[in-house]
Amino acid sequence: MESQIIEALTGIVGDKGILTGTDVTQRLEGWIGAPQCSAKAIVRPANTEELSAVMALCHHYDQRVTTHGGMTGLVGGAISSSEDIVVSLERMRTIVEVDAENRTLTAEAGVTLQAIQEAADSADLFYPVDLGARGSATIGGNISTNAGGNRVLRYGMTRESVLGLEAVLADGTVISSLSKVIKNNTGYDLRQLFIGSEGTLGIVTKAVLRLRAKPRGEATALVAVEDFNQLSKLLSLAESALSGSLSSFEVMWNDFYSLVTSFERHRAPLPSSSPFYVILETQGSSNESEQARLEALLGEALEQELISDAVLTQSVSEREKVWAIRDDVEALFSMVPIHGFDISLPIPAMQDYLEKLKHNLLKKWPDGRLVAFGHLGDGNLHVVIGQIPMEDKEALNEVVYRGLAQLGGSISAEHGIGLEKKAYLQHSRSEAELELMRILKQALDPKRLLNPGKIFD
Amino acid sequence: MESQIIEALTGIVGDKGILTGTDVTQRLEGWIGAPQCSAKAIVRPANTEELSAVMALCHHYDQRVTTHGGMTGLVGGAISSSEDIVVSLERMRTIVEVDAENRTLTAEAGVTLQAIQEAADSADLFYPVDLGARGSATIGGNISTNAGGNRVLRYGMTRESVLGLEAVLADGTVISSLSKVIKNNTGYDLRQLFIGSEGTLGIVTKAVLRLRAKPRGEATALVAVEDFNQLSKLLSLAESALSGSLSSFEVMWNDFYSLVTSFERHRAPLPSSSPFYVILETQGSSNESEQARLEALLGEALEQELISDAVLTQSVSEREKVWAIRDDVEALFSMVPIHGFDISLPIPAMQDYLEKLKHNLLKKWPDGRLVAFGHLGDGNLHVVIGQIPMEDKEALNEVVYRGLAQLGGSISAEHGIGLEKKAYLQHSRSEAELELMRILKQALDPKRLLNPGKIFD
Ligand SMILES: Cc1cc2nc3c(=O)[nH]c(=O)nc-3n(C[C@H](O)[C@H](O)[C@H](O)COP(=O)(O)OP(=O)(O)OC[C@H]3O[C@@H](n4cnc5c(N)ncnc54)[C@H](O)[C@@H]3O)c2cc1C
Ligand SMILES: Cc1cc2nc3c(=O)[nH]c(=O)nc-3n(C[C@H](O)[C@H](O)[C@H](O)COP(=O)(O)OP(=O)(O)OC[C@H]3O[C@@H](n4cnc5c(N)ncnc54)[C@H](O)[C@@H]3O)c2cc1C
Repeated sequence: MESQIIEALTGIVGDKGILTGTDVTQRLEGWIGAPQCSAKAIVRPANTEELSAVMALCHHYDQRVTTHGGMTGLVGGAISSSEDIVVSLERMRTIVEVDAENRTLTAEAGVTLQAIQEAADSADLFYPVDLGARGSATIGGNISTNAGGNRVLRYGMTRESVLGLEAVLADGTVISSLSKVIKNNTGYDLRQLFIGSEGTLGIVTKAVLRLRAKPRGEATALVAVEDFNQLSKLLSLAESALSGSLSSFEVMWNDFYSLVTSFERHRAPLPSSSPFYVILETQGSSNESEQARLEALLGEALEQELISDAVLTQSVSEREKVWAIRDDVEALFSMVPIHGFDISLPIPAMQDYLEKLKHNLLKKWPDGRLVAFGHLGDGNLHVVIGQIPMEDKEALNEVVYRGLAQLGGSISAEHGIGLEKKAYLQHSRSEAELELMRILKQALDPKRLLNPGKIFD
Repeated sequence: MESQIIEALTGIVGDKGILTGTDVTQRLEGWIGAPQCSAKAIVRPANTEELSAVMALCHHYDQRVTTHGGMTGLVGGAISSSEDIVVSLERMRTIVEVDAENRTLTAEAGVTLQAIQEAADSADLFYPVDLGARGSATIGGNISTNAGGNRVLRYGMTRESVLGLEAVLADGTVISSLSKVIKNNTGYDLRQLFIGSEGTLGIVTKAVLRLRAKPRGEATALVAVEDFNQLSKLLSLAESALSGSLSSFEVMWNDFYSLVTSFERHRAPLPSSSPFYVILETQGSSNESEQARLEALLGEALEQELISDAVLTQSVSEREKVWAIRDDVEALFSMVPIHGFDISLPIPAMQDYLEKLKHNLLKKWPDGRLVAFGHLGDGNLHVVIGQIPMEDKEALNEVVYRGLAQLGGSISAEHGIGLEKKAYLQHSRSEAELELMRILKQALDPKRLLNPGKIFD
């Protein structure tokens, strides 16, 4: 029967559209360093119609299907088994339209995030979602994981940038909701089913994205803060004073800032004696105006004693040096073996949570180290824990996730659940919520063929 | 059996919690002027637990249920029949918490929009959703209709302000997703099922709302534009120049502006000889800074010949006079009988659509009059058509909605479908989309007890 399916699939997508044997196994099942991919075949439809026929066929044969975008996901959401067919969107890479007047961009799901950003830029517009994997990650993958990134504070997650969506259901049905308008209250908002559901409810084939006005200038500052409670006051002040222009509010705890700036490649713009550091960035009308507004804000913050020290960058290279501190992931590898966590929780609960976590950590692993940084405005905390053996990963997960539920926190701010966080989902979701998720899955994919085993069983 | 149900319901909610007889019929089934409400009883639970028990009971008896918020909805979504039980949230009016540090507000669904706005304001914060019916409309109704209003351009629809949600399903199950964080990618986003689904998938009982920084100042201008194509260029320029501070971009077509300013109560700030007028408003750091930024923008727009004339208001009373033109709904009643439409379509298609609509209108009703105005930045057009007999309403609907589908437009930008637009839903939605909506309804409410007959059959 296997050869029968492969033959029928080839009939739909042609020889170019199907990979088997070593063409499958020389692919990876995730980001750089991941193990080999296993699957009966990788099917590469050229368009929505082909994919629809592929899915109808798989449905007929009860064939499981896992979808591949750019394979940059960080929770094992695209891992397949030798029983699966993989559908890859890699041949659906057409930017269908950039509508500059309506400020929308329509693209096939296999287009990379970077190609979307560049196409928007060429039209003198701006696609605000941005993340490190932009060159490989696809818009279909961004949508399926509801990716966040560096500008959520101002522009929201991917969810907020998707105006219209086309998806293929488990049985091959094409749901085309390619609306180009912001306001569309006509029955259930079907887009939402596919955004963030990690390929378990349908395969995203096209999207209409909302573009924004391109910022014409920016300004960046690094400030030191002496007390956790001042952080959210500073955030409120910045949002009031800079109004809608505040684009980043990145907090680094002292342990992070000290560690990173201890490396020769950085020159610490501020001494490492304060408990908190914040990068503030505003994007607006011009470099001059933003510089002036940020300077005024810093003055006000100093006066109100919300900050103890500040550096307002004066050039692109100074700005880059500040960001280089925040982005120096390499420095964290000095604590190997390291374990990264991407959690979120209400701002008032953060500091307490971290202190308790550190306490519990050191009790169990006296050599453990913990550094924290994050998008404070989004409630999103990155916690990197080092010097803990890889085989203790599960015990560590329990320690990190345990305290989150009662604080109203989330075990996954951005990356999703996939396979990796599945065992901990009940820390963020009640049994009633999980049951409703299962009801949705059952309604849309009763044969459980789409990305089986991901998110929940 | 009817008396049996009423008795059992009374057992759950107490005497205070149930209305029958003339207490039911003296209520209206909609906004001011609507006919009397009919229902077996109006049940007014005091909390989520009571509502859960009410729903479990109704589920047991196959009892249909329609939900009442503030009854300001404009599409007949809360109309009940004598076979229904009405659930009213009027006794669930507690603001549970204002968390100033985390910038969230948690409220029961029966709290009015105005009370939410005031509570945010008291904490020196800002809830951005605003609409004319704020004193009566409830947050539960706002959520169930995904209400828009005056500041969607900058802050999005109600959907974008809901961080967490609690709802009761048709069988009484309580789904509590009262997350207070912006980023929460942990499985399916269950909030989305209840936002905008007009009470057909569950009853919203509580919400966690996102609050924003309070703007400290604003500036308003009225400009004249000579060509439709200049409008979206002006919008792009305004969004670039004012960056995230642009809060309104309201377009009035000449027919609207001329009609309204012909009334003595207005003094036209600009002569009524231009085809388009736009109100631009920016909210930001201070009145002075916003005034300066808006003035600079107007200079640039004049130089680029995007606008032909402009008035920058210099005082609150001047600002109010400009807004009074846009908000003068009464003036439109000079064209009675009038018919209002709330549609959306891509900006490039708008002018063509309006011209064709006018042509088709006058062909059929030579006395007909059409005026247009709208939130251009959202693609949202208000079309008011006058001097057409009430009994021609359905024929008129056909003329207005017919052209929308192929232009990618929507028959309901803000108000929803309810009963009134049900017959026209297929103008905005494909059969595959409608079928998927039915699948969702079947999965969540297999007995079809919740708000029966609304949106679709
Ligand atoms: C260096 C780096 C930096 C990152 N930074 C961030 C960040 O700042 N913020 C953030 O949120 N994430 C970040 N990520 C993770 C992020 O989830 C991914 O980069 C991206 O969104 C996934 O896109 P992809 O095309 O690679 O998807 P894949 O990895 O291919 O797939 C991810 C999941 O989506 C499914 N999927 C993919 N395409 C489709 C489709 N068309 N239809 C249905 N399902 C599909 C897959 O089955 C899988 O479950 C980062 C990753 C890396 C490697
Ligand atoms: C003067 C005026 C101005 C308006 N301006 C705007 C505007 O600018 N933008 C805009 O979008 N709308 C506007 N509206 C319409 C808008 O939909 C409503 O004002 C509001 O959102 C509905 O809230 P409500 O509490 O009155 O809901 P209701 O009218 O009571 O109900 C509306 C629908 O939601 C359901 N519902 C109500 N509460 C719940 C609940 N707790 N759980 C589940 N379902 C529920 C009802 O069954 C019904 O289907 C306006 C209305 C008026 C009268």
